[in-house]
Amino acid sequence: MPRFPAMAPAVAALGGSIYSSLAERLAAHPGETYPLHVGDTWLDPPVGAHMEDLKSAQNPGLHRYAPPEGLPRLVDAVVARQRARVGVDTQRDHVLIAAGATGALGAMVGATIAPGEEVLCLAPYWPLIAGIVRQYHGVPVPVPLFGAAHSADEAVAIVAAHRGPRAAAIYLNTPNNPTGELLPRTWLEALVAWAAREGLWIFADEVYEDYVYRGEHVYCRALAPERTLAAHSFSKAYGMAGNRCGYVVGPPAVIAGARKIAAHTFYSTPTASQVAAARVLEGPGDAWLADARARYQAAGDAAAARLGLPPPAGGTFLFFDVAAHLGDDGLPGLLARCADHGLLVAPGPSFGPYATHIRVCFTAAPPAVVERGVDLLARIFTAGPRAA
Amino acid sequence: MPRFPAMAPAVAALGGSIYSSLAERLAAHPGETYPLHVGDTWLDPPVGAHMEDLKSAQNPGLHRYAPPEGLPRLVDAVVARQRARVGVDTQRDHVLIAAGATGALGAMVGATIAPGEEVLCLAPYWPLIAGIVRQYHGVPVPVPLFGAAHSADEAVAIVAAHRGPRAAAIYLNTPNNPTGELLPRTWLEALVAWAAREGLWIFADEVYEDYVYRGEHVYCRALAPERTLAAHSFSKAYGMAGNRCGYVVGPPAVIAGARKIAAHTFYSTPTASQVAAARVLEGPGDAWLADARARYQAAGDAAAARLGLPPPAGGTFLFFDVAAHLGDDGLPGLLARCADHGLLVAPGPSFGPYATHIRVCFTAAPPAVVERGVDLLARIFTAGPRAA
Repeated sequence: MPRFPAMAPAVAALGGSIYSSLAERLAAHPGETYPLHVGDTWLDPPVGAHMEDLKSAQNPGLHRYAPPEGLPRLVDAVVARQRARVGVDTQRDHVLIAAGATGALGAMVGATIAPGEEVLCLAPYWPLIAGIVRQYHGVPVPVPLFGAAHSADEAVAIVAAHRGPRAAAIYLNTPNNPTGELLPRTWLEALVAWAAREGLWIFADEVYEDYVYRGEHVYCRALAPERTLAAHSFSKAYGMAGNRCGYVVGPPAVIAGARKIAAHTFYSTPTASQVAAARVLEGPGDAWLADARARYQAAGDAAAARLGLPPPAGGTFLFFDVAAHLGDDGLPGLLARCADHGLLVAPGPSFGPYATHIRVCFTAAPPAVVERGVDLLARIFTAGPRAA
Repeated sequence: MPRFPAMAPAVAALGGSIYSSLAERLAAHPGETYPLHVGDTWLDPPVGAHMEDLKSAQNPGLHRYAPPEGLPRLVDAVVARQRARVGVDTQRDHVLIAAGATGALGAMVGATIAPGEEVLCLAPYWPLIAGIVRQYHGVPVPVPLFGAAHSADEAVAIVAAHRGPRAAAIYLNTPNNPTGELLPRTWLEALVAWAAREGLWIFADEVYEDYVYRGEHVYCRALAPERTLAAHSFSKAYGMAGNRCGYVVGPPAVIAGARKIAAHTFYSTPTASQVAAARVLEGPGDAWLADARARYQAAGDAAAARLGLPPPAGGTFLFFDVAAHLGDDGLPGLLARCADHGLLVAPGPSFGPYATHIRVCFTAAPPAVVERGVDLLARIFTAGPRAA
């Protein structure tokens, strides 16, 4: 059957840019604007890891293809970091450098999920994961867990209640985007044990591992290296989201499959971005991180205090229920009122079944700008739906 | 059914790195080596478009996310170029900047092909297209046409003979990788008319548009803008394959779908790579290209002459039948003999049903290196399968 001009059914189920219409509205705003809807970090990368620091003469092949699995220099640095941080056996063939965590997660989903199979996504979740699963014709199953479970047993019971016969994997994101929560060690151990009993892959999205303000980040791979595919990124960690460089670590057989998917979606990770990432790991990374972490925590704590919320345990976001502040025009009305004042926040439904939540990124702009944006939000709440 | 540790069936059907085992062999070679198996270009990018030329102070947001559809500056430059070169209406929403032509083709296939649908791939073809179709659970159908058809009518008859009931698109690559041939205008017109009658999408891979040595490159979009998705790249055009920056141009509705796929595979194209591409288009691009084109043509003509082949019409490759030079150990034996002498060439089966062909890239190394590598190949042919 000819099907032009119809498109692939899976694409219709993918979200488009959830922000673009509001962003256009923001662009027309005359005064200062507060783009707190994006997940981004405002700090520049460490000195020495800017593009201008990558000299062609010192970096032969800087503009040529890198190997699809990654530059050996960066792969080796990642191997060393995984051994030090996670403490389990890691060799070069456990690692695939990818076009950001998006590329890393796409490669792991593409390598493991057959059409119709389900991925249990602990919710709220990073918005793109649902679409990544759908584009490989899998089925994302939202599993509201953050804020709903209060013990390891409850967490397992919630996930088990959502397990269908075609479940193939569980996706978890800790430190969590959007809630800023960390999955406690006992919960993670219980969830991993359950996934092992059920014969599931574990997709561990750990891109905020470096932004922990309270508590402990537990590496999933340390608990179940045989079934964990862990996504990491240099984007948020080192202020280089535009470089598109991250990585996935997992069992070599799956990494070989993920490498095939990567080769067929972006071929290789940008060479200069890999050199920049290697320079960070080899040099200023830890000192830069310590400074960034302190600044981001201060911004997050201040934002939470202004909004009457508990301070975030990690990550770069606050996520909270605004039902009390909604009028007859619901969440869209609130978002529009914010946009009218130059403020964008992300709507809860992007993160799962959260019809009356919003997400605020407290690292998307310098602290003073975030502070004014959050203050504006608090005043919009105080003014109420009618008056604003 | 739990399926750990099984992987997605589609991944098993994807090719891995077709070259890695031979590349390891090459790495161990003591003398000069000739990596003519890859598709790459040896020239550095134009001055002003190296990474070191991109100063953070002059490029705010250089390391931050670009919009998923591309930097407006680059999108506008592509729009202007499409209008000038292709001569059909082109607006911003006809364009998606992507992570190289690989990202561009992945986005168009993902946006249009449903599981089980077929893509008629004019063969020989760029090796990754088959895997790109498979990873979205489509079915690539090789259609041997280059070298087999001798008229527009024959070309249509060959494609029509391969059309099954689930065909949804036709993929064509001109100037062709690997053959270096250009699809003549009359053939392209006939193929496009046939695709329109059959209700098929057209995936036009035109990444070698700038390397035409003899004849005319015909833009598919000029013939059928409503159904053509055209892939272009800065990789080979300007010596920046490692930057991973290309683009797809097509009807806005499909571009919107392709943008969703792109957002879920690599999110945005690397920001610095887009700035570098924009700088090339705004500045030294044409002059650099004229010089590169002359050098590449000279290398191609010399290689063809040494091997007794017709000079290439375009592109960066020679593709030819080596059946007369094979011994009992077949093509693998020839490839191994080449590798023993430090020379890698690409095996014909990567490009479709070409069991006794090889591909040689005449731009993968500086001309003197290519010349020595091609001379080595000619001497291996002369020596014959036993003596070599």
